[in-house]
Amino acid sequence: MAVTPYQQLEQEFRRLHAFRGALSLLRWDAAVMMPHGSADVRGEQLAALETELHAQLTTPKIARLLERAEAGASQLDDWARANLREMRRQRDHAIATPPSLIARLAKTAARAEVYWVEARKAGDFKLFAPHLTEIVHLVRDKAALVGQARGLAPYDALVDAFTPGISTADIDTIFKALSRKLPGLIHEAIELQARQPALPIAGKFTVARQRQLVVDVLKAMGFPFDRGRLDESEHPFTEGVPGDIRITTRFDVGEPFTGLLGAVHETGHALYDLGLPQQWRDQPVGRDRGLALEESQSLLFEMNLCRSRPFAKYLRPLLEKHLQVSGDEWQEDNLYRTLIRVRRGPIRVDADELTYPVHIMMRYDLEKRILDGALAVADVPEAWNEALDQRLGLRPVSDVDGCLQDIHWAVGHFGYFPSYALGAVIAGQLNEALRAALPALDEELAAGRFAGVLEWLRDSVHAVGARLPVKELIRQATGKPLSAAAYLRYLETKYLEVA
Amino acid sequence: MAVTPYQQLEQEFRRLHAFRGALSLLRWDAAVMMPHGSADVRGEQLAALETELHAQLTTPKIARLLERAEAGASQLDDWARANLREMRRQRDHAIATPPSLIARLAKTAARAEVYWVEARKAGDFKLFAPHLTEIVHLVRDKAALVGQARGLAPYDALVDAFTPGISTADIDTIFKALSRKLPGLIHEAIELQARQPALPIAGKFTVARQRQLVVDVLKAMGFPFDRGRLDESEHPFTEGVPGDIRITTRFDVGEPFTGLLGAVHETGHALYDLGLPQQWRDQPVGRDRGLALEESQSLLFEMNLCRSRPFAKYLRPLLEKHLQVSGDEWQEDNLYRTLIRVRRGPIRVDADELTYPVHIMMRYDLEKRILDGALAVADVPEAWNEALDQRLGLRPVSDVDGCLQDIHWAVGHFGYFPSYALGAVIAGQLNEALRAALPALDEELAAGRFAGVLEWLRDSVHAVGARLPVKELIRQATGKPLSAAAYLRYLETKYLEVA
Repeated sequence: MAVTPYQQLEQEFRRLHAFRGALSLLRWDAAVMMPHGSADVRGEQLAALETELHAQLTTPKIARLLERAEAGASQLDDWARANLREMRRQRDHAIATPPSLIARLAKTAARAEVYWVEARKAGDFKLFAPHLTEIVHLVRDKAALVGQARGLAPYDALVDAFTPGISTADIDTIFKALSRKLPGLIHEAIELQARQPALPIAGKFTVARQRQLVVDVLKAMGFPFDRGRLDESEHPFTEGVPGDIRITTRFDVGEPFTGLLGAVHETGHALYDLGLPQQWRDQPVGRDRGLALEESQSLLFEMNLCRSRPFAKYLRPLLEKHLQVSGDEWQEDNLYRTLIRVRRGPIRVDADELTYPVHIMMRYDLEKRILDGALAVADVPEAWNEALDQRLGLRPVSDVDGCLQDIHWAVGHFGYFPSYALGAVIAGQLNEALRAALPALDEELAAGRFAGVLEWLRDSVHAVGARLPVKELIRQATGKPLSAAAYLRYLETKYLEVA
Repeated sequence: MAVTPYQQLEQEFRRLHAFRGALSLLRWDAAVMMPHGSADVRGEQLAALETELHAQLTTPKIARLLERAEAGASQLDDWARANLREMRRQRDHAIATPPSLIARLAKTAARAEVYWVEARKAGDFKLFAPHLTEIVHLVRDKAALVGQARGLAPYDALVDAFTPGISTADIDTIFKALSRKLPGLIHEAIELQARQPALPIAGKFTVARQRQLVVDVLKAMGFPFDRGRLDESEHPFTEGVPGDIRITTRFDVGEPFTGLLGAVHETGHALYDLGLPQQWRDQPVGRDRGLALEESQSLLFEMNLCRSRPFAKYLRPLLEKHLQVSGDEWQEDNLYRTLIRVRRGPIRVDADELTYPVHIMMRYDLEKRILDGALAVADVPEAWNEALDQRLGLRPVSDVDGCLQDIHWAVGHFGYFPSYALGAVIAGQLNEALRAALPALDEELAAGRFAGVLEWLRDSVHAVGARLPVKELIRQATGKPLSAAAYLRYLETKYLEVA
């Protein structure tokens, strides 16, 4: 049988897909199951497999096959051509970052993470600063190299690694629109909510009971427990591959919402991964369309669909059943008020739907300034506190609640933060289109029926895989170009509603 | 820096070690954590990584490096030379089995396993027979190819894959000695035990309580819970790598011995793996010295050390503490009688210490005859029942308890069974040497102190890794050549003792 260069590439990438699946399981296990003394052994395994993946992606053989396949691309169908484009993108990213730089980054990041933990314990940014400085130098090198290879400005090159198809210009436009509206909206929402404050929730809710509640909700959403797992970890995450998807959440025995919404958020990721085109599941075009779109799927479920009145209605009897609770604070109205409560605070991961993007925009500004040298690492704490004060009118008590709160920079993830806020914006836009397509959505949610939502998402988003550039995918799914308009409409309607 | 061919080989095999570690975790997860619907995805990942491992082991580069390193072997020290020898062995095994044969074997085995399960459900060997026939053809091909490459007779080549350094001639000598003594010994032991039968154990012992008991015992044995895990699975096993070792057991809520001794057995494997030479842990010479020696380590703990009077003495208060039991049946004497009870039965995995080797010898005879064509697959059930009748004087009720009871042949593992009985023989020989070296061993065991045992094993067995051929390792550890003599002495003393 004659095997074309393109078909050979499919074979090569099929192998790489299996490697990625193994890597994902190694990471999942490290966070959920691994005994604490085994981190060094696991680190070696991860490094070896990642190095191997990189090596295989950058062989001259792949380069030759890509050139030959691209020369005959006109004979390929849409999917295969898109697959070829994604193969090229992966390879260009890999080839632009030499193994020596990757190894140095991995090593420096591993050390920087240790000192980040130390600095948090000691409440002393200075312990972390030299390591962050080293990370910044390496990330700059990487940004320059990838930028050159992909024809992008350095910061755009970093964003491209996480969220291909979205540029700094796109982000700036969207963040400008958010900056114009959000401060006023936050102010008004807090005032409005102060008039009818949510009754406090109190009690002790065992993990076993909370887990039952979460399982019930996740089953309603369509999480496939026969091909997936729900576990606990320090921070919720999703790992695995379609066919074996693994989510985690973190339970708070003092209240049931952290555990539930954490799991709902990750289920959004899981459902996206599960809905990716089955026949391309081991190829680059069968993967998710980047981090911002991933985040749109988790946030659509967590924020748009589940921090809502109809979901509160669905949730009330489940809370009664699983947690044996009763009283006014467990009634639908109060549940909804609890779910959408807006409060300014210093911590990103504790932030509510309205203030969250503010934390992101602040980090975006800071990390660009750090990378282009306008902001020295030593000056980060003060710049952070200034920025938070300007944007939310508060200052963190210490750097632990300030510039030491996120692990991202320590591990070299610059260009990652914007995807969180972009995800919220895209979720807002998808939400508007979804509601137009499913006029009875609220009744469905109130009954715990997610089938219609899932069907729409599968057709409009999931099944596209990486066939279209992300902005084109959004345009086709919603009929409109990517913008913050729908998201802001949604926020205004939700948070300025007088109950 | 000048890197020698040998040093380059070390680098290559270091990478392969990381692959094996990842593969081991994938297998562990499949048996312990994986959702049941994910078997197909996991199968693809395992196949891809195993194929890759095979491909990397058989590159011309490895062959060239081996030749160049072997040419300069005289300049290497003992360990490095042994390492080179083990590299060569791995590579010769791999090169002898072309990827196409491996793929066909894997595929056929996967299907045969399904039909093995079906045949067990239906109690109908005929459902399984055609698949076993296909497996036998492929295993014959493999045996011939590996035999040619390694200069071994076909069946020896299969044994060599699991237990290098032991030949059919060795096995025949040992099994002949066992066959001469065991039938009479079994008969006498059963008669003797009938005079003072063990009082029956009854009750309901929750998994949680049994687990606490097991954890206590395993801690005493030195199982490193900070770098290892204990979980449950259908059949007990050990996976992982030194630094992250994972054992499982299977609990029976009707009695506490299955769960405990299963875990003790696997801990024997785990302690061996943990004691392998640390500085060679990612090299072939740093691995265990084959399946028979692995099994000797698990059996030494399970049979020689823990199915013993002093262990019963140590166990009694632990049973009282964790299971809140009391009464005559929980006293030391009765515990010991229970632990060493001999009963003829049709099932290998349920067999006691005395009858177990009989099951193995029977399978050894049968599988050799199947492979050389003297026994047709269709005639296996009758041959099985005949053999069991001859050797133990009983016939299985159905093939489910007969020739369908083991998975080994279904998955192509011919040449594997002998290692179980060889392990018992080696354990018997090590036990004799250990007792000579540690005269106070029984008092130590009665106090739950395993440190002396472990130290002796580390020095004599574990730390050798794969530096010596297995028979030489045993000779150095015990001062005597491998033989069944010590094992038979041990069995006679234990089972003919009049209490």
